[in-house]
Amino acid sequence: MSFQNPVFIPGPTNMPEVLRKAVDMPTLDHRSPLFGQILHPAIAGVKQVLKSKSAEVFIFPASGTGGWETALTNTLSAGDKILAARNGMFSHRWIDMCQRHDLDVTIVETPWGEGLPADRYEEILTADTNHEIQAVLATHNETATGVKSDIAAVRRALDAAGHPALLFVDGVSSIASMDFRMEEWGVDVAVTGSQKGFMLPAGLAIVGFSPKAMEVIETAKLPRTFFDVRDMAAGYANNAYPYTPAVGLLNGLKLSCDMLLGEGLENVFARHNRIASGVRAAVGAWGLDLCAASPDVYSDSVSAIRTPEGFNATDIVTLAAEKYGVAFGVGLGEVAGKVFRIGHLGSLTDVMALSGIATAEMCMVDLGLDITLGSGVAAAQDYYRNQDAAPAKAAA
Amino acid sequence: MSFQNPVFIPGPTNMPEVLRKAVDMPTLDHRSPLFGQILHPAIAGVKQVLKSKSAEVFIFPASGTGGWETALTNTLSAGDKILAARNGMFSHRWIDMCQRHDLDVTIVETPWGEGLPADRYEEILTADTNHEIQAVLATHNETATGVKSDIAAVRRALDAAGHPALLFVDGVSSIASMDFRMEEWGVDVAVTGSQKGFMLPAGLAIVGFSPKAMEVIETAKLPRTFFDVRDMAAGYANNAYPYTPAVGLLNGLKLSCDMLLGEGLENVFARHNRIASGVRAAVGAWGLDLCAASPDVYSDSVSAIRTPEGFNATDIVTLAAEKYGVAFGVGLGEVAGKVFRIGHLGSLTDVMALSGIATAEMCMVDLGLDITLGSGVAAAQDYYRNQDAAPAKAAA
Amino acid sequence: MSFQNPVFIPGPTNMPEVLRKAVDMPTLDHRSPLFGQILHPAIAGVKQVLKSKSAEVFIFPASGTGGWETALTNTLSAGDKILAARNGMFSHRWIDMCQRHDLDVTIVETPWGEGLPADRYEEILTADTNHEIQAVLATHNETATGVKSDIAAVRRALDAAGHPALLFVDGVSSIASMDFRMEEWGVDVAVTGSQKGFMLPAGLAIVGFSPKAMEVIETAKLPRTFFDVRDMAAGYANNAYPYTPAVGLLNGLKLSCDMLLGEGLENVFARHNRIASGVRAAVGAWGLDLCAASPDVYSDSVSAIRTPEGFNATDIVTLAAEKYGVAFGVGLGEVAGKVFRIGHLGSLTDVMALSGIATAEMCMVDLGLDITLGSGVAAAQDYYRNQDAAPAKAAA
Amino acid sequence: MSFQNPVFIPGPTNMPEVLRKAVDMPTLDHRSPLFGQILHPAIAGVKQVLKSKSAEVFIFPASGTGGWETALTNTLSAGDKILAARNGMFSHRWIDMCQRHDLDVTIVETPWGEGLPADRYEEILTADTNHEIQAVLATHNETATGVKSDIAAVRRALDAAGHPALLFVDGVSSIASMDFRMEEWGVDVAVTGSQKGFMLPAGLAIVGFSPKAMEVIETAKLPRTFFDVRDMAAGYANNAYPYTPAVGLLNGLKLSCDMLLGEGLENVFARHNRIASGVRAAVGAWGLDLCAASPDVYSDSVSAIRTPEGFNATDIVTLAAEKYGVAFGVGLGEVAGKVFRIGHLGSLTDVMALSGIATAEMCMVDLGLDITLGSGVAAAQDYYRNQDAAPAKAAA
Repeated sequence: MSFQNPVFIPGPTNMPEVLRKAVDMPTLDHRSPLFGQILHPAIAGVKQVLKSKSAEVFIFPASGTGGWETALTNTLSAGDKILAARNGMFSHRWIDMCQRHDLDVTIVETPWGEGLPADRYEEILTADTNHEIQAVLATHNETATGVKSDIAAVRRALDAAGHPALLFVDGVSSIASMDFRMEEWGVDVAVTGSQKGFMLPAGLAIVGFSPKAMEVIETAKLPRTFFDVRDMAAGYANNAYPYTPAVGLLNGLKLSCDMLLGEGLENVFARHNRIASGVRAAVGAWGLDLCAASPDVYSDSVSAIRTPEGFNATDIVTLAAEKYGVAFGVGLGEVAGKVFRIGHLGSLTDVMALSGIATAEMCMVDLGLDITLGSGVAAAQDYYRNQDAAPAKAAA
Repeated sequence: MSFQNPVFIPGPTNMPEVLRKAVDMPTLDHRSPLFGQILHPAIAGVKQVLKSKSAEVFIFPASGTGGWETALTNTLSAGDKILAARNGMFSHRWIDMCQRHDLDVTIVETPWGEGLPADRYEEILTADTNHEIQAVLATHNETATGVKSDIAAVRRALDAAGHPALLFVDGVSSIASMDFRMEEWGVDVAVTGSQKGFMLPAGLAIVGFSPKAMEVIETAKLPRTFFDVRDMAAGYANNAYPYTPAVGLLNGLKLSCDMLLGEGLENVFARHNRIASGVRAAVGAWGLDLCAASPDVYSDSVSAIRTPEGFNATDIVTLAAEKYGVAFGVGLGEVAGKVFRIGHLGSLTDVMALSGIATAEMCMVDLGLDITLGSGVAAAQDYYRNQDAAPAKAAA
Repeated sequence: MSFQNPVFIPGPTNMPEVLRKAVDMPTLDHRSPLFGQILHPAIAGVKQVLKSKSAEVFIFPASGTGGWETALTNTLSAGDKILAARNGMFSHRWIDMCQRHDLDVTIVETPWGEGLPADRYEEILTADTNHEIQAVLATHNETATGVKSDIAAVRRALDAAGHPALLFVDGVSSIASMDFRMEEWGVDVAVTGSQKGFMLPAGLAIVGFSPKAMEVIETAKLPRTFFDVRDMAAGYANNAYPYTPAVGLLNGLKLSCDMLLGEGLENVFARHNRIASGVRAAVGAWGLDLCAASPDVYSDSVSAIRTPEGFNATDIVTLAAEKYGVAFGVGLGEVAGKVFRIGHLGSLTDVMALSGIATAEMCMVDLGLDITLGSGVAAAQDYYRNQDAAPAKAAA
Repeated sequence: MSFQNPVFIPGPTNMPEVLRKAVDMPTLDHRSPLFGQILHPAIAGVKQVLKSKSAEVFIFPASGTGGWETALTNTLSAGDKILAARNGMFSHRWIDMCQRHDLDVTIVETPWGEGLPADRYEEILTADTNHEIQAVLATHNETATGVKSDIAAVRRALDAAGHPALLFVDGVSSIASMDFRMEEWGVDVAVTGSQKGFMLPAGLAIVGFSPKAMEVIETAKLPRTFFDVRDMAAGYANNAYPYTPAVGLLNGLKLSCDMLLGEGLENVFARHNRIASGVRAAVGAWGLDLCAASPDVYSDSVSAIRTPEGFNATDIVTLAAEKYGVAFGVGLGEVAGKVFRIGHLGSLTDVMALSGIATAEMCMVDLGLDITLGSGVAAAQDYYRNQDAAPAKAAA
């Protein structure tokens, strides 16, 4: 696999040069004041990206999965009731984590390809008149299916039910790529990682806690030390960490926030929508369908593309890697073999996207699918060249 | 603080160029076969560094603290009894983590500056005729005091008592710097991190589990997902991870092991001893004492140096950073203000060590201590120049 | 302009990561033995790439233009007679350099788009019965027109005329991309640079001198110091340079040669031919012509593409840069505005090439040319996917 | 030799991280407007560093030797008369270059260790009543002897003689390290390189031409193309180069100027004086003498240290490299074996300097010189710690 071709996996993303260089720093004493000059701007930047003024942000040397665990263990106790929908592999895994921590999860099974069923949430919450449900889980963007859900609708469901449960949102593959409004949507814990919209290497779990979530951390009884936000909070107050921080990644995160905020979050989102729309135009030209059931749930960070019955979509991914040196994503779980995925988040340009589309096209023809070479590329070209706005440009 | 001066903190260490470049890699699809070509050699290398043929090695995107939590949560259940000695800040923190996970710790309070009391361990284990103690904790090198303990003696204590408890060893600041023999010493869980002897950025928790430790992971009831070694083991079997791995750090770890094993572990240890001996010669020339109570516990990775009564040792650290742009370590916990620490592990040369000694000397004179400029440097020079062996050389 | 899109200029090329990292090295004492461990392997590698066993290789911290000057000033004296053809901007410039050095150049004007006229060379050399012509210049690959000339034919012309003139070849944009046989073709001075087939940053002039060329350096009277090969030769004998060398670039050159020779030169040439053939398939699908007059002179390192009468080809280059963040080459000299150029040498993959083709296509449609979106891409895809050989892969 | 020890050669210097990263950039189209955004600020920065408002600055992909050749070939014709003093290896080489270009040099032989004899210059210029001397050469800092000369005095000599000759100054190892006033001193051509005060890799010849020098470039008959400032000037007017520029080095130069000017040139000079004074204090403590004859000619960028009669000073350099992995400079030419050199220019701190002093000390003791270990270090420590100013800090 060539390091010069872009990757088209749904994270880790292609990385801008300047972020790689910010991460690759010499050893700095993390107990010196200099560390605070990295840590605090990074935290402040994340808050702005989350669109929250009141959240407390905690950053762990971990992955998004560690962020999920941070959300659960700092707010809940064994036996607590949780409400969650399962509509893809990542919502499934979070539910599994709950169960391993002895949480009692009410699971709303939802077809893979559909968004979270806010109406079902409302029914269940309304029926929970004793308010036994402590937390509601919501996966903003199901990376496995390329499905974006309506978090505002989930919030409305909670409000309509008059239910005080905490709202935890997995924004790993949405935050910094698609609109996310922690405060407006009343999100109590938002979870993301460094390797998606922030365009950094994997290695940071990034979480935001609302004041309401912070209120329960002392009563939460699930054991935790590494992911204990109290130790983090105490450390931050002294420009420090409870253990050795990943200083280079934090330095990268500081710069990533500067870049995203400098470009303007709405411009970042528009850029992702632009790139994604070109990919979707190609899919249409191929005569294929997205796994995502309807346009309102189309993800701007990843497209899962259904291949015809009887065809193993994973073959596309294998061939692309072996013959063309290009990485796409395979289908996972229920949709394994049925879809392949083109990741289009992070640092990507129209031109890079076209090379991914062209590669997918070659692979499908190589494997005998009835696809016309150049057809998807032409549809995407037509879309990209007719956009009024400045071209999608990856950050330097 | 200048990035060109070496750091003299006890980790993260100065990093060789080639390791920084190995870590700073473009995005690689962690679900492709290429990832296995990084992961498996890294794991195999770590096993050799641990001197174990039977251990299973797990590498988490976390820190050494995460390694401690991995050890506890994969092998123990709430209420389990633990035996541990507290002889410094890091043994203290591991004990604290046990207590937060509802483990019942028998604490052997030990003077800070002394090594683990294997004799007391033997007494307690012998008295535990019902074998209620499930695990014994041992901090191989107390980073806070510069004290190395005798792990072989702890093993002998367990054996003499005929006690089946698991032996967990914190080797964060010893492994890959000082001799560590996982198999010979019967260590059941060994814990370390990327940022010490491996000379990498922080961001990896590295643990080795003995077959005996692996036997209990299914019965251990402490909740865990992020740190669950079962998910790791299942992933490794497929060249994969249960979540997004820190590919660059793993690539660095692979190369770091190649470098350490290529140099020869005994040569690596001799190099650390050489550098440390020069530092200790300087301390002697200054007329100061180490925190470490006796030569048999002197650490080759960090020296904690006692300053005279009434003097605040932390002032040295502050002045070195502000006036000379050099990072030393402060005293922690019981020895805060009483010691300052010179870290001398990882990628360091005689010449770099001399610059640290010279800086400490200037600071002490600046702060009014009765130290002769050049005295410590001369003692270290005399030691270094009379070594027969090839000079200590940091890896390129 | 995004740094993440590939560049499609005919050099400097896209650079493999490992070469960038080899160039970016810390300061090394260029008077120490370590320098020889970089210099001599680099020189040996270049000799193999030049396919010469007898040449002496000299490497200056300069550019290809400096290599031209090295060829002239070390072998000639003011007033000497030179034979050269002018069939593009770079042959023009070398002629101009001769004239500035008071050399007397017989210029064979040749249509831009045609190769060097070996038959005319033979006529002129045969007529020069007194052997007054000291040197014959030949531009192997005219970067301005995408025309490759037949150097073996030039050698045959010299031989047929029984003429002892030296043969100087500009291989700046051919060497390490297209077959070049210094010894077999009887080339006396071969000139290239670091930023083309060697895939490095600009900054090295690389020249090979045949034994016959070395014989005349003492009698050559053109003044030179910086480019004096005698000082270089004397330095090399002592692992040294006559002035400060560009150590990092030399380190990169050493690795570049290792990579090229490891891949196999014939494979490197086949890779370039493969990439170029795809680009030419696209040009055909667009209904456009190359500047190169016939397939036997098609360059595998750059294609100059003629646009219709009345259309300013430079607009494509400007639009590509401004709207899509992609760099193509403009037409130079006689063909300014008439052609645009796609560079396809160095570190490039099929997939990257497709993104360049797709971009050119969008620009031409944007500017009103009668081109069908996707048509050139489809032709190139069809070509690339039907190659039996392993895919073109840029070095890591 | 370890890459982690600082180098103590008089250039190339230790390089700040940020400059290395600025140089290590991806390929950028040097014919695009982006190149101008690097080139012009770099030129403007150099002008400020030269302290000239009227000079034209030209930057070649070459070395300082190329800068010397630029000065000569753009302003002179074969047979022209030159006045120069020879007081070290570098003045010797520039004279040699003149002679190879058929210039007629009047050489004032000057003891190595003394500065340029302005009084002799004045006598010779006064005697040249026909004003046949076209140019006067002056080496501002003789890198071979650690001798700084008084350029203002040379200017006064010219003025006192009423002589119109051009004044060419080699400032390779002085500019950006010691005060240099191109305009005030009436310097007509100033020559430097990237690898000394600018703290960059070797690879750029940097020259400034006064308006008076620019006036003669059309009449100068020495042949040149690569170093022709007319082509450069024409290129710059179009944001371009006459050939492929070293874009990364120019990007580094732009940032280097920003750093130097941001720190303040006078602060940069004070920093060099501070570091140098510590080294000289050590030399005094060792009981050794500098090659430089008197304090007024002490160089702040390099110290050449005389060793006792009968001792081969080069042994120190060899031993330092082989045993301690540290690079010093050997004696050159007349002082070969008689001196060793400690370079102390560029990115260096007190702390780094102390490690060099300590290493030299060990080597001298190892080789049997009567030196007390720690004595030079103590003298330097005493000097450094008593400076009121902020500590010498290398740029990040």
